[in-house]
Amino acid sequence: MNGQNSALLTDLYQLTMLQAYHREGMSDTATFELFVRKLPPNRNFLVAAGLEQLVEFLENFRFSDEECEWLNTLGYFAPEFVAYLSDLRFTGDVYAIPEGTAFFQNEPIVRVTAPISEAQIIETRLINIVQLQTLIASKAIRSVLAAPGKLLVDFGLRRAHGAEAGLMAARAAYLAGFDGTSNVLAGKLFGIPIYGTMAHSYVMAHDNEAEAFGRFAESLPDNVLLLIDTYDTLEAARKVVALAPKLAEKNISIKGVRLDSGDMAELAKAVRSILDAGGLSECSIFASGDLDEHELGRMLEAGAPIDGFGVGTRMTTSRDMPYLNCAYKLQEYAGRPRRKRSKGKANWPGRKQVYRHYDDNGFMLHDLITEESESHIGGEPLLRQVMAKGKRLGSQETLTAMQERLRGQLLQQLPPALKSIEESAPYAVFISDGLKRLVERMDGAGL
Amino acid sequence: MNGQNSALLTDLYQLTMLQAYHREGMSDTATFELFVRKLPPNRNFLVAAGLEQLVEFLENFRFSDEECEWLNTLGYFAPEFVAYLSDLRFTGDVYAIPEGTAFFQNEPIVRVTAPISEAQIIETRLINIVQLQTLIASKAIRSVLAAPGKLLVDFGLRRAHGAEAGLMAARAAYLAGFDGTSNVLAGKLFGIPIYGTMAHSYVMAHDNEAEAFGRFAESLPDNVLLLIDTYDTLEAARKVVALAPKLAEKNISIKGVRLDSGDMAELAKAVRSILDAGGLSECSIFASGDLDEHELGRMLEAGAPIDGFGVGTRMTTSRDMPYLNCAYKLQEYAGRPRRKRSKGKANWPGRKQVYRHYDDNGFMLHDLITEESESHIGGEPLLRQVMAKGKRLGSQETLTAMQERLRGQLLQQLPPALKSIEESAPYAVFISDGLKRLVERMDGAGL
Repeated sequence: MNGQNSALLTDLYQLTMLQAYHREGMSDTATFELFVRKLPPNRNFLVAAGLEQLVEFLENFRFSDEECEWLNTLGYFAPEFVAYLSDLRFTGDVYAIPEGTAFFQNEPIVRVTAPISEAQIIETRLINIVQLQTLIASKAIRSVLAAPGKLLVDFGLRRAHGAEAGLMAARAAYLAGFDGTSNVLAGKLFGIPIYGTMAHSYVMAHDNEAEAFGRFAESLPDNVLLLIDTYDTLEAARKVVALAPKLAEKNISIKGVRLDSGDMAELAKAVRSILDAGGLSECSIFASGDLDEHELGRMLEAGAPIDGFGVGTRMTTSRDMPYLNCAYKLQEYAGRPRRKRSKGKANWPGRKQVYRHYDDNGFMLHDLITEESESHIGGEPLLRQVMAKGKRLGSQETLTAMQERLRGQLLQQLPPALKSIEESAPYAVFISDGLKRLVERMDGAGL
Repeated sequence: MNGQNSALLTDLYQLTMLQAYHREGMSDTATFELFVRKLPPNRNFLVAAGLEQLVEFLENFRFSDEECEWLNTLGYFAPEFVAYLSDLRFTGDVYAIPEGTAFFQNEPIVRVTAPISEAQIIETRLINIVQLQTLIASKAIRSVLAAPGKLLVDFGLRRAHGAEAGLMAARAAYLAGFDGTSNVLAGKLFGIPIYGTMAHSYVMAHDNEAEAFGRFAESLPDNVLLLIDTYDTLEAARKVVALAPKLAEKNISIKGVRLDSGDMAELAKAVRSILDAGGLSECSIFASGDLDEHELGRMLEAGAPIDGFGVGTRMTTSRDMPYLNCAYKLQEYAGRPRRKRSKGKANWPGRKQVYRHYDDNGFMLHDLITEESESHIGGEPLLRQVMAKGKRLGSQETLTAMQERLRGQLLQQLPPALKSIEESAPYAVFISDGLKRLVERMDGAGL
């Protein structure tokens, strides 16, 4: 089972529509845009992510011979259409908001202009790729905001929704400001720093906890992090203190302890006292277990002396809202703007751009969504061209560069109210007069 | 990026623990069990799923040469340990509850017995594989229960959490009783029936809706399903009626229409009237768009004449609870039971079995969790051996067989109260006296 690179990772209707376009000879240029209709509750902004994987997908898009043979067995498709599919490549232009940029409702984050069949066939996987990382980056940054200056590590692989979800979540969390991940493969693929301690099973496999601690320390002397909640946390902290001088004789120091259950704010205070009294003031305390931004905020507000957090399942699955209300919609075909008017799902037509306006101190004031062709005054255009005629423009941006872009925005541009993990008054996103007039003209003409 | 088969798809601490075990010469047999601590709210039972993918993972588990070379560059691991990893295979025994079986809290659904390092290193991906499909099957079956006899199709790929999530969700939903999926690759890989109609973009790319309908019908004459909510649903239904006689001349009949927005219960009634009045009583109505089991229940209760549903994002992401509170825990090492006592996370120790008891009519009465070695009276053991010495036992079960097992349970065994999509009184899961005595002995001895 190895599907992530397959062009068949799509909805059947994309293929039935393509067959109809093919039969009708409809091959004019179309523009589709991906946007989020509405921010989820408790998200004051979203963070664009996943563009790198999207570009890789588009550059490599093709149906293999074996896939075409299989399509021919289905009885849905004419052989000449399948032959056409086997030659199909993505040759379009792509504009996108760079990864690590804050954005808001109705703002196109990816704009694709290509012959209609090419722009259509990529829809399902395009959403699948960009939605996930954008969702997770937008969730992960809330932990970053709740625990400034603390070490944050993604622990979510095991309950992520499959392999790709775990890898993409590690990447998105790092982009959002996490320090690293427990996910070894994410370290290899993306160069993300990897972190790890021990599991309860390691302690339980030994006949006593102190013996487990000592042996683990000798096995990994440069990075001794001990999990102390398997039986009794405070008792285990005392064992750590008792062990320290013995390890010191071997030039091994205990770098940190991890808590994974109980009232961790209270436990951290008690453990800190035990460690300090035992001369281990350099030994850090790390916490994990069912954490999210709210838990982090509560613990730090309660004065918990915790130096770092492993944030797992609730971040990796975006527990409170595990998807974005996003859509990839046809906005223009054959040079004419198009508009869906379905109830509750109407959208702004035409090929668009987003301009961000800043105040004199460099803080974001508002965004303006315009027709691409519209003349406008000032503001920073958010959508940049990333592919031309199916090829990547420029070189691949590093994850670190994206992380820095976002950190810069957080510090210097994002209005302070939006940085709360509580819901703030919404950021202003305006629709240009040109776009409003376009809608009036289209609705007036019944288009 | 191609990670799903990599042994590096794991948490770093698995590798640091393995290095410690290796250094200590700890290689005795361990038993780990995967179980769910607590059912999520609104789940009266869970459905085991994902075992097939787990067995494939275990049979093929290995670190590649390239992965070992990379591990050697990290500085965490001794070269002799990495050499040991390169030879590591899974040689253990696995017992599991068959896919498509209802189960409950604290019941081991997978039990692994192997040399401790083998049983440990597989933890992360084992949870990652089984948790996802079990989560989705347990969510999807709620739509099956809410809409008995209706056509149900998985539409969730685009907002699933990546490629693997979309594929596994399609499989899990089918296992749970869905009729098919829109996911073409899932059709190819798992033999699941695939379904599809058209998107709004198809309608919008044409200059008028009626023309779009007509052309689509001619392109796919055997399977004419028309999306009618792009502009005005009732108007579109009238266009369908007007189109039908023209298509009939070409021996094409309109199989169905799809609604995707608005008050679909009301719209379905109005559309049904229009279709019936126009002689299209054979034309079915299919609904999609932000659906879940509650929406299905409400629409059907309101008497909506809907024949089938596309259930997407909310099912594929398990919207209301996107993860299971599950754990894979060491229960026995070197012949001795082990028990974690962390606050709120204590578990039942030892190698276990689950016996299901039925009443005279064949309905499930209660389950009993016992030590594996315990003598007991009656009941059906749920855990069956699926791997011996690292090899699959018997042949691969078909998805259809699993689907039938589950359908049989729903009809003939599951207590009717549990089949409600509202929360019912919990099913009784008892802990055997032997297991309780074991815990007392272990706690008494401070183990």
